[in-house]
Amino acid sequence: MFYERGYVDARVQDIAAEVGLLKGSLYHYIDGKEDVLFRLLDETHDEVNQILDEMAALPDTEPPLDRLHEYVRRQIAYNMENLVRVSVYYRDLRCLSEPLLAQILERRREHEGFVRGLIVAAQERGEVDPDREALPLSKFIFATIIWTYRWYSPARDSDREVDRRCADFAIHGLVGSGSPAAVVGGYTLPNRLVD
Amino acid sequence: MFYERGYVDARVQDIAAEVGLLKGSLYHYIDGKEDVLFRLLDETHDEVNQILDEMAALPDTEPPLDRLHEYVRRQIAYNMENLVRVSVYYRDLRCLSEPLLAQILERRREHEGFVRGLIVAAQERGEVDPDREALPLSKFIFATIIWTYRWYSPARDSDREVDRRCADFAIHGLVGSGSPAAVVGGYTLPNRLVD
Repeated sequence: MFYERGYVDARVQDIAAEVGLLKGSLYHYIDGKEDVLFRLLDETHDEVNQILDEMAALPDTEPPLDRLHEYVRRQIAYNMENLVRVSVYYRDLRCLSEPLLAQILERRREHEGFVRGLIVAAQERGEVDPDREALPLSKFIFATIIWTYRWYSPARDSDREVDRRCADFAIHGLVGSGSPAAVVGGYTLPNRLVD
Repeated sequence: MFYERGYVDARVQDIAAEVGLLKGSLYHYIDGKEDVLFRLLDETHDEVNQILDEMAALPDTEPPLDRLHEYVRRQIAYNMENLVRVSVYYRDLRCLSEPLLAQILERRREHEGFVRGLIVAAQERGEVDPDREALPLSKFIFATIIWTYRWYSPARDSDREVDRRCADFAIHGLVGSGSPAAVVGGYTLPNRLVD
C-alpha cells in the first residue's frame, strides 16, 4: 500500500481492507500508520543485518575485501528480491518522526561503520590507496548497492548476474585507486582531460 | 518550493509569493504547476546535455574511457553544485504526466546511450571485459553519479575532491572487470566466498 500510494496518501483503512480486517480490528495489532512503516523498516534491518552479522562473524583470516565483496553482493541480491520493500525504505524513511527515525538511522549507521572499517582494513594491507578517504569511498559503494532499486527490472535483468557484476564493479572501483600510478588492467587514468 | 514541500504539496500561490507576484500575474508566465516542473527538469537537461555534447565533440583520438571519466566527473560536479534541483529531478520526475514525461525520458535516454556507447567502444579496444554486458555496467556508472544527491553534504565533503574520486571509482570499477583473471592492483577477486 505504501509502495503503490506513497506513505502520505496510504490510509490505515486501505491496509485493513488489504489484509481482510475492519479498521478497528487492525488497531488491535498496530498503533497506527507510522507504526506499520516503522515495523516494515525495522524488519528490513533485521534482514539485512543478518548479512552484516554473517560477514562480521567470518574468521579473521578472511581478507577485508573478500568480506566486502560478499557483503555488497548479498545486499544487492537482497535489494533485487525485495524491490517493493526497499523502494518504500528509501522513499518514505523520512516520513518517520522522532524517536522512531533515530532508531532506524542508528541501525543504518552500523552498516556504514562496517563498510568503512573494511575499507580502512584494506588500506592498512596496502590493497586500497591509504590517501583516499574512507568516507566518500564508502558512499560510492553504497551508491552501487542502493540505486539497484531504481533501475533493476526482474523481467529484463534477472539473467545478468547483477549482484556479482555489481559487487565486482564496487570492489574494483575501490582497489583500482590503490594501484601504483592508477594503472589498472593496462589502462591509465588520465590526469585531466579537459581543463 | 518543490524541494521543500514536494511537488504534490507545493502550490502555485506559494511560488507566486516567493517570486513576488500575485498568483494571477504568475499565470501570464506559466501554464500551471506542472509547467513549472517540466521547465525545471527540461532546463536541467539543457545544462547536463552541455556536458554530453562537449564530450561527444572531442576528437576521435580521445580514448572512450578518458571521455567517460570526464563525463562522470562533470556530471557529479553538476550534481554537487545543484543539489536542490537534482533532488527535485529524481524525486518528482514521475509526477509529470504524458507527453511531458516522455520528453524528459527521451532526453535521459541520450545519456544512457552515450554511456553505453563509450563502454562498448572500450570493450572493442580490450579495455573493458567484452563478456560483461554494457547495460548493467552503465547502470552501475549512473548509480555512482546519481546517488551523490542523497549523501553529498557541502559542509562536510567540499574538500574531498568528490567528483574526481567518484569518477576514478567508476572507471576503475569498469576497467577492473576487463583485466585478465580479475587481478587488479595486486588483489584477486574471490570466486565465491560463501555459498
